[in-house]
Amino acid sequence: MEERFAIFGDILYADEDMEIREFKDSYLIVNGTKVSGIQRSRPNGMVVHDYGGMLVIPGLTDLHLHAPQYQFAGLFMDEELLQWLERHTFPEEGRYADLDYAKKAYSIFTSDLLKSETTRFSIFATIHKDASLMLSQMLEEKGFSGYVGKVNMDMNSPDYLCEDTRDSIESTLSYIEGMKRFENIRPIITPRFIPSCSPGLLKELAGISKEKGLPVQSHLDENLSEIEWVKELVPESRNYSDAYRMMGLWGEEKTIMAHVVWPDDEEMNMLENRNIFVAHSPSSNSNLSSGIAPIRKMLERRINVALATDVAGGSSLSILRMATHAIEVSKLYHRLVDEKSRPLTFREAFYMASLGGGRFFGSTGSFIPGYDADVVVLDSSSIHTTLYDEISLAERLELYAYRCAGRPVAAKFIKGRKVL
Amino acid sequence: MEERFAIFGDILYADEDMEIREFKDSYLIVNGTKVSGIQRSRPNGMVVHDYGGMLVIPGLTDLHLHAPQYQFAGLFMDEELLQWLERHTFPEEGRYADLDYAKKAYSIFTSDLLKSETTRFSIFATIHKDASLMLSQMLEEKGFSGYVGKVNMDMNSPDYLCEDTRDSIESTLSYIEGMKRFENIRPIITPRFIPSCSPGLLKELAGISKEKGLPVQSHLDENLSEIEWVKELVPESRNYSDAYRMMGLWGEEKTIMAHVVWPDDEEMNMLENRNIFVAHSPSSNSNLSSGIAPIRKMLERRINVALATDVAGGSSLSILRMATHAIEVSKLYHRLVDEKSRPLTFREAFYMASLGGGRFFGSTGSFIPGYDADVVVLDSSSIHTTLYDEISLAERLELYAYRCAGRPVAAKFIKGRKVL
Repeated sequence: MEERFAIFGDILYADEDMEIREFKDSYLIVNGTKVSGIQRSRPNGMVVHDYGGMLVIPGLTDLHLHAPQYQFAGLFMDEELLQWLERHTFPEEGRYADLDYAKKAYSIFTSDLLKSETTRFSIFATIHKDASLMLSQMLEEKGFSGYVGKVNMDMNSPDYLCEDTRDSIESTLSYIEGMKRFENIRPIITPRFIPSCSPGLLKELAGISKEKGLPVQSHLDENLSEIEWVKELVPESRNYSDAYRMMGLWGEEKTIMAHVVWPDDEEMNMLENRNIFVAHSPSSNSNLSSGIAPIRKMLERRINVALATDVAGGSSLSILRMATHAIEVSKLYHRLVDEKSRPLTFREAFYMASLGGGRFFGSTGSFIPGYDADVVVLDSSSIHTTLYDEISLAERLELYAYRCAGRPVAAKFIKGRKVL
Repeated sequence: MEERFAIFGDILYADEDMEIREFKDSYLIVNGTKVSGIQRSRPNGMVVHDYGGMLVIPGLTDLHLHAPQYQFAGLFMDEELLQWLERHTFPEEGRYADLDYAKKAYSIFTSDLLKSETTRFSIFATIHKDASLMLSQMLEEKGFSGYVGKVNMDMNSPDYLCEDTRDSIESTLSYIEGMKRFENIRPIITPRFIPSCSPGLLKELAGISKEKGLPVQSHLDENLSEIEWVKELVPESRNYSDAYRMMGLWGEEKTIMAHVVWPDDEEMNMLENRNIFVAHSPSSNSNLSSGIAPIRKMLERRINVALATDVAGGSSLSILRMATHAIEVSKLYHRLVDEKSRPLTFREAFYMASLGGGRFFGSTGSFIPGYDADVVVLDSSSIHTTLYDEISLAERLELYAYRCAGRPVAAKFIKGRKVL
């Protein structure tokens, strides 16, 4: 890899204060795998990738998506969570026992993900160790960096997706071992959710996470029926979060909790644990009639919130679309649920899409010097408007997000390597 | 124009019962400007437009959009209706006094609209007669069919957009006269909304509508502050709808009321007037923090409901995106407002996007024999999924709507004429 190079274009990123920093016609200087700075003058003695007139932003982060569900993203949307799981999600996930099928489906998924704005992710695969390793290998080969979890399920699941507890643990350990061959794709402990994992399994997974220092991901407070079910299953817990806590899975290591649509007051306090990241999935929460997560309240408490597509609850791989969708539903929350909860603004949504999620992975999601050089280039030349020359770069990004999100990106770099 | 021709592909349309009819690998036979039927066997002695493997659907209908706002569609989204009007919408509309600007801006608008799924529309222009005629001419030249209204405003508006009442009437009459030169683009009476029109103006407009048999379009019950304002302005009215009724503008002629987010019980009864069409604008109603319209309840009462983009409250010209958005917000309404209100289904949304709105224009929006041959072709070849061969045509359309809505269509016919 060349040591130093530059990326030229209209550069933007969100900083720690959720402000958007803008650098028109500037050079992003990359040193190896890291950002070293931004300058107006053309640098000497290095390769320049010229994206003049295009928007150069940090790679975005998808903190929750189900790779095996991508084949039916945008289908079967007339159903609610628990029915949708039984009728479509579980049968489709069952097919990944067949490695030929997995290869075909994951090829489509990884190709499409490469064209999206996402550079980092935390993925749910299936219970199948071999297919999950295959997915990880494909992602590694495409140049991605992120987490892939082999899913654990040992109860309340259809036969073909229900593991024996012992097998589930052993298969997880073997998966973790197998993942050692990858440089950038790492394992994450992935109990599906409380209803599909026995307490014994959850506690063993907590032990593995702690022993090996591995992060954890699961689902929390997505749907009212699901919450009732958890109450029945773990009657001694004070709430859903407390059920995870009792199993040793509450932020002992870095943890992603997906959805968090219906946290009670005590759970809101518990979410202030700095190891917990909320993966906000506005499209999925609309599509599955789950509700609207109280994101403004979380931001006010400085809870870590990032955006997620939750494919296939969400139908799009575009985190930029999630940004505008997060704003939209926050406006409906403001109007219909709690007038005091101000709508999210574009700069806040962009922060959650980039640096807010990037912090889960270390130093990525911004162009602060020293951060990983994860870069995405957006071509807005198909947008025609008389106002284009009058508006700021942040407004151009807003325009692109509302009008073009979901289109293939023009270029992508991950850790300084050009992957698209 | 050739007398008879055929369009080959995977044909779908919604019928009067809101069911989706499917015809795989079939021929839509067009006779002049009308649909004559659908058949499986290749017809003899006529030209065949071959869109094998693509989806062939009726042209969609956009019952409410503001052409002069298109230049800032997807911008300034962090504001609510009344502030957004003052800061962005009115200043931009003011620029259409300048015909050079209007020409530039409306060229962009009409080109982009041609690429959308829309074939029929009812458009708000501005108060400017000449720019509105220019817009109509451009639309006519592109081959469109539909309504364009010169807007009326004679109070509570910035100076540069506030007409003298007499001038407003005369300019409207002159506009109607000027529109006679077009074959397919027709005028529609367009008082902006109650707050920007004096009772005198509204009553005269009602008289013109009645005398000339012209349809009417305006805004209704979009925003809570707006509703309060109407109450102050017309204190003797029982509600917003009643204010229009008092002015003679309640369904005397065919009428579009945009939004209708907050109708009270009496207004729901009044909406059963068969001449009134509700233009449901789910994106705009989210973007401007307006709320969620009770569409399920309207459908249950057999109120006419169609979809609308409400550009630039909505940021997209895609009615197919409005279809999925209508479903999404109906799910949030079900969860957050009224559990008894079942979410909309895809087939219902597709009906509203096509035949539901088409009925405003006469016989369009479906492939029932005798209907206008308004046809749109969607190319789903960029969608890769292992399930594609297993799913029905209706499911392929759902997939396209969730994943691709907003992309340029592959071909378009209006009244039997190929326009794209």
